[in-house]
Amino acid sequence: MSAEIICVGTELLLGDIVNTNVQFLAKELAILGIPHYYQTVVGDNPTRLKEVISIASQRSSILLFTGGLGPTPDDLTTETIAQHFNTPLVEKSEVIEDIQRKFQARGRQMAENNRKQALIPEGAAILPNPTGTAPGMIWQPQGNLTIMTFPGVPSEMKRMWVETAVPHLKSQGWGKEIIFSRMLRFRGIGESSLAAKVNHLFDLTNPTVAPYASLGEVRLRISCKTTSETEANTIIEPVAQEIIKIAGEDYFGRDDDTLAKVVGQLLRNKKQTVGVAESCTGGGLGGMLTDIAGSSDYFWGGVIAYDNRVKIFLLDVSPEVLEERGAVCDIIAQQMANGVKKRLGVDWGIGITGIAGPGGGTEVKPVGLVYLGIAGPNDEVESIKCTFGDRSRDIIRYLSSCTALDKLRRKLY
Amino acid sequence: MSAEIICVGTELLLGDIVNTNVQFLAKELAILGIPHYYQTVVGDNPTRLKEVISIASQRSSILLFTGGLGPTPDDLTTETIAQHFNTPLVEKSEVIEDIQRKFQARGRQMAENNRKQALIPEGAAILPNPTGTAPGMIWQPQGNLTIMTFPGVPSEMKRMWVETAVPHLKSQGWGKEIIFSRMLRFRGIGESSLAAKVNHLFDLTNPTVAPYASLGEVRLRISCKTTSETEANTIIEPVAQEIIKIAGEDYFGRDDDTLAKVVGQLLRNKKQTVGVAESCTGGGLGGMLTDIAGSSDYFWGGVIAYDNRVKIFLLDVSPEVLEERGAVCDIIAQQMANGVKKRLGVDWGIGITGIAGPGGGTEVKPVGLVYLGIAGPNDEVESIKCTFGDRSRDIIRYLSSCTALDKLRRKLY
Repeated sequence: MSAEIICVGTELLLGDIVNTNVQFLAKELAILGIPHYYQTVVGDNPTRLKEVISIASQRSSILLFTGGLGPTPDDLTTETIAQHFNTPLVEKSEVIEDIQRKFQARGRQMAENNRKQALIPEGAAILPNPTGTAPGMIWQPQGNLTIMTFPGVPSEMKRMWVETAVPHLKSQGWGKEIIFSRMLRFRGIGESSLAAKVNHLFDLTNPTVAPYASLGEVRLRISCKTTSETEANTIIEPVAQEIIKIAGEDYFGRDDDTLAKVVGQLLRNKKQTVGVAESCTGGGLGGMLTDIAGSSDYFWGGVIAYDNRVKIFLLDVSPEVLEERGAVCDIIAQQMANGVKKRLGVDWGIGITGIAGPGGGTEVKPVGLVYLGIAGPNDEVESIKCTFGDRSRDIIRYLSSCTALDKLRRKLY
Repeated sequence: MSAEIICVGTELLLGDIVNTNVQFLAKELAILGIPHYYQTVVGDNPTRLKEVISIASQRSSILLFTGGLGPTPDDLTTETIAQHFNTPLVEKSEVIEDIQRKFQARGRQMAENNRKQALIPEGAAILPNPTGTAPGMIWQPQGNLTIMTFPGVPSEMKRMWVETAVPHLKSQGWGKEIIFSRMLRFRGIGESSLAAKVNHLFDLTNPTVAPYASLGEVRLRISCKTTSETEANTIIEPVAQEIIKIAGEDYFGRDDDTLAKVVGQLLRNKKQTVGVAESCTGGGLGGMLTDIAGSSDYFWGGVIAYDNRVKIFLLDVSPEVLEERGAVCDIIAQQMANGVKKRLGVDWGIGITGIAGPGGGTEVKPVGLVYLGIAGPNDEVESIKCTFGDRSRDIIRYLSSCTALDKLRRKLY
């Protein structure tokens, strides 16, 4: 028993829209514990849609369709499904009445082509659409095969899913066992190095452990299928704790924890404050820190010192060092960190200066070279040299901010 | 001859991420004029992946794979493809060397499991990955079938597509008649209002005109299919000019023009400079301005004045006004704009102060209330009240920065 999601729409093949429907349904299936192995996208073409239905109905037992339920001639999901299973369409008078009511409420007349939306295969049940004119259906055209159709409009699809499809699936026995998972998040270690350290856990079956790479961090997901959150914790936590112990300080948080959130929590616990002095990131680190609601508890602000004059005017950076060594060096990063710490009167100052590119690199100071400065409460100040390589400007800027947060995090432990 | 996109990754089946790769590739195929009828997503499971390859290779002649090229045991796209076509894998020493070089550049050692990434089917060519460790391949395992593989990391995939895959496809004769389009971009007018103004153009067939709504702006796409850019311009430009005339100052740019880029160009032309004083945006406006390479020509920097003390220390905002009226008001926005303008010695100062939420709103000053201040070269200073409504924190912050840029843009005309 497994589900397959089939999205119908030429706009998806043209790349005009991003397919958020499939992500929503995929998540929902995972929560209900319904296995789901394939997603297919096909255009508004009856021949190819029929072929897709034929393949899917052989390998999957629940087919979820989105799109192609509208009133226009190119909307042909329902009739193509009916044709594939050699079943005639019947007109549902209650759907016609519902559509007429909705048009009236908007002060309009139902168009003749909306009548098409009331046709469903003989034997199928209406899957009501409370907000739009296109209802879906729930149909069992053959033993061990359930078909559900939804419109492509995400808000309509979601409401129909929650209000009718989920209760129906639960009544069929699904959702008793659901998938719980924890995402553990790491920074400062590559995917392959972390994988090598926890390699013995990848063969586990309950829970399962799987790695995910993502820009600036590595993630491990621990999942299990069970009936209650308490039981899930009993299964997942020992493995989580083992991984956290192995990873040491490279582990920074789980699930929704971002570096900015974790650093914020650590600062709040210590009743300490931070300010930033940003050159190449231009405000990005401040932006990351203030993404977190309530960050005013520990983040006071800072200086965007993009031009060297601002470094001198507002951060008291030495004009001589700027002249001699240039803005991208360890001393300037330290002076920026110290400068913002002193000017603002905060406990921690972070300075970032580097070459984000694409221009401005030299052999000695290539694109991707970034110096971080961290000035702390005991007057110590440190600089860290980062070489992010010849990557894109936005990635270098993003990684600079992430690394700065990560270095501060380690100092706050 | 048609292409099929096959995305491999259990994270897609679990709904952990939204599949932006498939949208990117779909758009690119449309531009090249390569027909594309199916998209398939399958998990990291060799049996099911083999089945998908079998189906796709019968109905499509170009298969584009994303995902499953990493170093861990569950990354098995390459080996499964090779197995399906009964072809042995060979180790490419140049890939090993490339991976080692990349690890060295980041000051790390290559892990043993990265060696796996150098295996490709005998007869296949490397599809180089300039930024990551996972190269792809271009392979013709049988007549009339071309396979290309890409990693799942979007930035790596995109660069490989642009730098290697597109030239390869063009050398095969694709892309002679291609779809050219111009995206016109507007701000300060709603989608329906703009649509009403240019309604007579939506029935055109060559070029076509279609509206796209996107956060903080409205776009109109003008497209035509033809063989040369010159011809495309002849078809598209008259319509573009008509729309630009109708939209007036609400039109701000086309294609890759962002507000930050357009404002930057206007400042550069006038040889003027700008600085920012950000409270609720916390650095986001500076981040937007410095997203643009070369922004140091006109952007000097600014102050992130998240805490009121920073507003007083570094922007000379009046403590009395702060006390009496609170930080979110027109006078503070003006004082912030003036303060940064004077402290930095720039031509334009922008101040932003508001309530981004979700907490901190009151009946008088609800979430979404934002004041912008703009101080200009002739000592004039203006404030603008924005009410973005009870939207999410990140949207309110984003729209605040966009609106500030848009207001400055109109002053620079």
